[in-house]
Amino acid sequence: MLKNGMNFLMIPGPTTLPAEVLRAMHRPAIDIYDGPIVQTSASCHDDLKQIFRTRSGHVYIYVSNGHGAWDAAIGNTLSRGDKVVVLDAGHFAREWGLAATGMGIEVEVLPGSWRAATDPQALRARLSADRDSTIKAILVAQVDTASGVVNDIPAIRRVLDETGHEALLMVDVVASLACIPFEMEDWRVDVAVGAAQKGLMTPAGLGFVAAGPKAHAAAKRANLKTRYTSWEGRRGEADYLKYGGTPPEQLLFALRAALDMILEEGLEQVWRRHAILGQALRAALSAWATAGDVELNILEPSQRSDAVTVFLVRDGRARQLRELIAQSCGVNVGLTIGDIAGNGLRIGHMGHVNAPMILGTLACLQAGFTALGMRFGPGGLDAAAQVIGDAIKR
Amino acid sequence: MLKNGMNFLMIPGPTTLPAEVLRAMHRPAIDIYDGPIVQTSASCHDDLKQIFRTRSGHVYIYVSNGHGAWDAAIGNTLSRGDKVVVLDAGHFAREWGLAATGMGIEVEVLPGSWRAATDPQALRARLSADRDSTIKAILVAQVDTASGVVNDIPAIRRVLDETGHEALLMVDVVASLACIPFEMEDWRVDVAVGAAQKGLMTPAGLGFVAAGPKAHAAAKRANLKTRYTSWEGRRGEADYLKYGGTPPEQLLFALRAALDMILEEGLEQVWRRHAILGQALRAALSAWATAGDVELNILEPSQRSDAVTVFLVRDGRARQLRELIAQSCGVNVGLTIGDIAGNGLRIGHMGHVNAPMILGTLACLQAGFTALGMRFGPGGLDAAAQVIGDAIKR
Amino acid sequence: MLKNGMNFLMIPGPTTLPAEVLRAMHRPAIDIYDGPIVQTSASCHDDLKQIFRTRSGHVYIYVSNGHGAWDAAIGNTLSRGDKVVVLDAGHFAREWGLAATGMGIEVEVLPGSWRAATDPQALRARLSADRDSTIKAILVAQVDTASGVVNDIPAIRRVLDETGHEALLMVDVVASLACIPFEMEDWRVDVAVGAAQKGLMTPAGLGFVAAGPKAHAAAKRANLKTRYTSWEGRRGEADYLKYGGTPPEQLLFALRAALDMILEEGLEQVWRRHAILGQALRAALSAWATAGDVELNILEPSQRSDAVTVFLVRDGRARQLRELIAQSCGVNVGLTIGDIAGNGLRIGHMGHVNAPMILGTLACLQAGFTALGMRFGPGGLDAAAQVIGDAIKR
Amino acid sequence: MLKNGMNFLMIPGPTTLPAEVLRAMHRPAIDIYDGPIVQTSASCHDDLKQIFRTRSGHVYIYVSNGHGAWDAAIGNTLSRGDKVVVLDAGHFAREWGLAATGMGIEVEVLPGSWRAATDPQALRARLSADRDSTIKAILVAQVDTASGVVNDIPAIRRVLDETGHEALLMVDVVASLACIPFEMEDWRVDVAVGAAQKGLMTPAGLGFVAAGPKAHAAAKRANLKTRYTSWEGRRGEADYLKYGGTPPEQLLFALRAALDMILEEGLEQVWRRHAILGQALRAALSAWATAGDVELNILEPSQRSDAVTVFLVRDGRARQLRELIAQSCGVNVGLTIGDIAGNGLRIGHMGHVNAPMILGTLACLQAGFTALGMRFGPGGLDAAAQVIGDAIKR
Repeated sequence: MLKNGMNFLMIPGPTTLPAEVLRAMHRPAIDIYDGPIVQTSASCHDDLKQIFRTRSGHVYIYVSNGHGAWDAAIGNTLSRGDKVVVLDAGHFAREWGLAATGMGIEVEVLPGSWRAATDPQALRARLSADRDSTIKAILVAQVDTASGVVNDIPAIRRVLDETGHEALLMVDVVASLACIPFEMEDWRVDVAVGAAQKGLMTPAGLGFVAAGPKAHAAAKRANLKTRYTSWEGRRGEADYLKYGGTPPEQLLFALRAALDMILEEGLEQVWRRHAILGQALRAALSAWATAGDVELNILEPSQRSDAVTVFLVRDGRARQLRELIAQSCGVNVGLTIGDIAGNGLRIGHMGHVNAPMILGTLACLQAGFTALGMRFGPGGLDAAAQVIGDAIKR
Repeated sequence: MLKNGMNFLMIPGPTTLPAEVLRAMHRPAIDIYDGPIVQTSASCHDDLKQIFRTRSGHVYIYVSNGHGAWDAAIGNTLSRGDKVVVLDAGHFAREWGLAATGMGIEVEVLPGSWRAATDPQALRARLSADRDSTIKAILVAQVDTASGVVNDIPAIRRVLDETGHEALLMVDVVASLACIPFEMEDWRVDVAVGAAQKGLMTPAGLGFVAAGPKAHAAAKRANLKTRYTSWEGRRGEADYLKYGGTPPEQLLFALRAALDMILEEGLEQVWRRHAILGQALRAALSAWATAGDVELNILEPSQRSDAVTVFLVRDGRARQLRELIAQSCGVNVGLTIGDIAGNGLRIGHMGHVNAPMILGTLACLQAGFTALGMRFGPGGLDAAAQVIGDAIKR
Repeated sequence: MLKNGMNFLMIPGPTTLPAEVLRAMHRPAIDIYDGPIVQTSASCHDDLKQIFRTRSGHVYIYVSNGHGAWDAAIGNTLSRGDKVVVLDAGHFAREWGLAATGMGIEVEVLPGSWRAATDPQALRARLSADRDSTIKAILVAQVDTASGVVNDIPAIRRVLDETGHEALLMVDVVASLACIPFEMEDWRVDVAVGAAQKGLMTPAGLGFVAAGPKAHAAAKRANLKTRYTSWEGRRGEADYLKYGGTPPEQLLFALRAALDMILEEGLEQVWRRHAILGQALRAALSAWATAGDVELNILEPSQRSDAVTVFLVRDGRARQLRELIAQSCGVNVGLTIGDIAGNGLRIGHMGHVNAPMILGTLACLQAGFTALGMRFGPGGLDAAAQVIGDAIKR
Repeated sequence: MLKNGMNFLMIPGPTTLPAEVLRAMHRPAIDIYDGPIVQTSASCHDDLKQIFRTRSGHVYIYVSNGHGAWDAAIGNTLSRGDKVVVLDAGHFAREWGLAATGMGIEVEVLPGSWRAATDPQALRARLSADRDSTIKAILVAQVDTASGVVNDIPAIRRVLDETGHEALLMVDVVASLACIPFEMEDWRVDVAVGAAQKGLMTPAGLGFVAAGPKAHAAAKRANLKTRYTSWEGRRGEADYLKYGGTPPEQLLFALRAALDMILEEGLEQVWRRHAILGQALRAALSAWATAGDVELNILEPSQRSDAVTVFLVRDGRARQLRELIAQSCGVNVGLTIGDIAGNGLRIGHMGHVNAPMILGTLACLQAGFTALGMRFGPGGLDAAAQVIGDAIKR
């Protein structure tokens, strides 16, 4: 029993939609050839460049979820039979690899672990061995929502630079964009793939592909794009061409409102907010783990992301705990999937999150431990509140 | 800094609007003579009787806030020069008394304290002394949001019964309706005054006056009602007469959605939820108070309400604390008003509230204490989480 | 059958809500003591002065419908036993008179007709006869939605001036405000009463009372006001005092959006739009009336309002016609009420109306005539389209 | 000047969104693994079968516009190098052909005209000549919004049957679905492609591909599908697999509301409504054309669709007329595109349309003729009103 009250959607996406975003979507359909939708579309395209931190690149908006954007990224840059290396550190890089395989790409997986980030040295070894430059692209997820890991993209960039390898660096930022620092221009990422429904606080239905100069050069040779997905077609004069047809008006109005919020807060402040909230979360979990039935999934603290936190729960009680706090407290966290399916829980802390949402979630988890008779180390809630207290000191 | 995320509106009204309620309001205007608005209006009138727990009474809906409903309650039952006794135990009973005075009623205040409920024995003494039955009505607030007190309405009823006094029992339930038990029929309350924007989770703009048989009998003699406020006119056949003119369509659609939520949850379960959440709040505050700069305003635990909690903050830091957690955490609590203005904070926990909202609010308060260097006794958050944990055990 | 499509709400209120207004209302509840609601409230109060065209006056916002605002207007300016004269020319002036009677005012009705405006000369005779200035106020509706009449307020003002009578001039502009010219300052109207749900395109639930200097002077002596309705209390510093309690936040957000629309279009352009649309409507009705079963209710063309048009239907087919076009076409017009109840139809053309709404409504009426075998003179639709065509010529 | 009032979006898509649909979209994001989104998704998939009138087929929902659904239809049924024949009768069949070409399909265009439907006999000749069955599919648009034509799908089916040709029959019903009769099962259509933003009254962002048994058989051999677009993957157990990733929650809530409206009205009644409204439109245009500056684009009356009407305007005044009624009347019609670009206007009458919307649009067109000094034959508006009058006779 209990419940009622605002739902706390603390899953790794879709994430909580701000009231402003929902309200912005509540607009009549309008003509697609001129007027407000054309202006909205143009300013969204422009402002997304700030979000991806690219100056020389261009951001394409697809009516799709993130998986659709994966296809578009591959289709515009690669050709049938090309080889790519996927950096395995969870579920989603693998999945992207499977998408590539399905399009006729030869995919090699650099083996990794679900409890650690990709090791740049392993990649260095592989690239050094690729004397004939048969590897056309590296596919990596910055944050993997299945494991909670954050991969070190600058380090991967350095490996490419130091080995002098020319492969495209393609990064899935679906779960990291507008959550943690991502610098497309400075890190010379060639392609970045994002989506609306996580850090961007917008209803699912929009996928983003940011492409830099090297990716655009590759696009000229790529033979897997279609007229609908093709970047060239999407840079036409008329606005609807950017969507290969009718623009998704209401979703764009929503995106506009979300971008306004992010830019008003300031992207770097958005990152800082996520960093502090992630730290508070891990402070509680670390305290509980000292003598308890829970354990953070990612072993090395510096590899734990500030967007998704995954922890393992002993004795198969993850599902029970998840259902209890969903039904009694209105707090939704996700169950682990893939290699660690059912063994733990995933907390999304992306986008429209703040201190009471994080602290309220943590306290309900502790209430759940109590209700289920689970053991937990002391001081978790106080530690989390302390992180927030320190952060808001003036 | 920090902030973003869902706003926690923990003031003593208006309270958080459920998404369902906001959505319900988003409907075109329609004809007022037949169709959906007439059905909605009729079912709201019916279902409000369940909320007030009256069978023999009738609930009138006014387009007004609670203060407007005060006027309507007085105007329909009393006449110029009548004497009433106001039971002082905070701000709002006094205010209701001033409203009565402004309408030409003679108002006597039974003195009370801002830190305690009305003492039924004091009322007994006063009524016993009223040999000529000059007192026509007793005005009392069940919960006073300024002090956080809950008055014992059944005990007051017993005093009236035991002294054989015929005064009308008129209760302000603005801050208690659909939060804590109120039994209009069983407690033989003659008039109860409520409003939309607290436990009823509906946008401000609707006031409710529930009237029982004795109040309806009194209405025949009362000479302060207007054609607009008159109960008689509002019981006409046509629906718009119930509002003395155009019905407030969008507010009624919202009210309908809120009533659906309450009735689906079950009113008694709604009360239980408030009771547990109130207990959790006080568990933390009591722990903090053991060695700290805060103190619960109401001295006697049994007189602390499950709808609003007021605590005093030493050294004039209430305002600073309030602003810090509003601006940094997005948690809005109220400053104390009236006799204790500025000395403390008021937390509203009415209507659309749940465990993570309460626990998140508490944790942000503790973060605020930390940030401001305030002292607080240990174990507050754990105690609150323990209350929730015990409640959700199956 | 047929139907589906946008509903055409062509009744004399509530009127069509613009999408912008509905959307604006879709906002969470917020703190009432500072921030956006205080700013919104202040700017609404200011901008309403532009709508009422008063510089020296003040506009009070009541949480009520128009009938509640009637009470507030009387209560703040008059005292028990005062005499007023009501200018009868339809339903609503009479009703306002009944409201006054119910508050203890002595009401005299200057007899009129439902088919004509008040005759200023009849008022002149009455005022001239009032040697002792026993008449404290004149109550008149600028537009009466029951008859469709527009009264000549400047002419009534002149009668007061020329007879040197000091009675307050109190005008109901519920159905004319933001529809047709109303000049509170220039016409020296002392009190004007409006409401949200007609020309102001805002959900029902807000009533407005604009008061000029003479009304404020009268308010000092008036003894029918309550603490809740009192202008003096409503001019307090804190914003919530303007509402005598909790402000109706969502309705104010809606009002703000509606005022923005009106001010952006320009109030005088709003008046022009209503004038042209009214002319188009009457062009069709006049053509149909030449050989048909319909007839305009107001006999003298110059007394037909540009906000509501009432026409009589022979052989008792009004109700049948109304239901047919409501159910088949989604066009809602109102049935006549009061003295001409059931004999005709009332078309509201107030607020959010434009050419295709008027022309579509007219064409559906003609389709209804056809379906019911009613007679109608030729050329009605062409005449209406011609009015619009002439108006949009550049 | 003029304007204000409800916008009349009479373009060939996106079309007017019902208030119910906009409201339905206004819901918080929720968990994608269970609960309301899974139920909504399942029932939408089911009910779309009723809309496509297929029993043995399955409908796939893509997060895309109609052009994205074209790709998915081709990708799942054809392979690189396959030959298809496109039946040219306007813009959109050609465009679909270009999409196929871009995917590596060999496309042959059966020449047609922009002023007539495809001639089944021309197709018969072509298929008879295809002795080796090299043609794998026929691509045709049922309604082409560029020309206003409706193609005779049953006749095309008969040609395939009578020539014994095994090519897949693939029909674009983007502009006809839920507007005019389409019988996927009875007409043995193998693949039908639709979209949300026209007859389905849902915000743009959803594309539909309905596939019958023969298409599913073909899918086993097709080599152009990706993991994201593949039907096989989209028939997985978990709901999110149906979208190849995160489902577009808010769009699905909107679709659910639209389907409820259609099924409540009854699909066949929806078709009848479109038929009557189309007839009314053409009655006016035909009258105007008798002596005027306008002319219906499609020459043969039986080939004019009940979803989109295209008419040509003499002397290059189409654009001027379009802008005048958009800016003065709030009526948006579309300019012609493609081969007849700029020579005429396109009126969309799909989805959420009713009698006053059509009649109001026509009357504003006539007002526009007047304002611009254009000639038009008499009796157009009366003729249109007569069609409606006859239809609503009881």
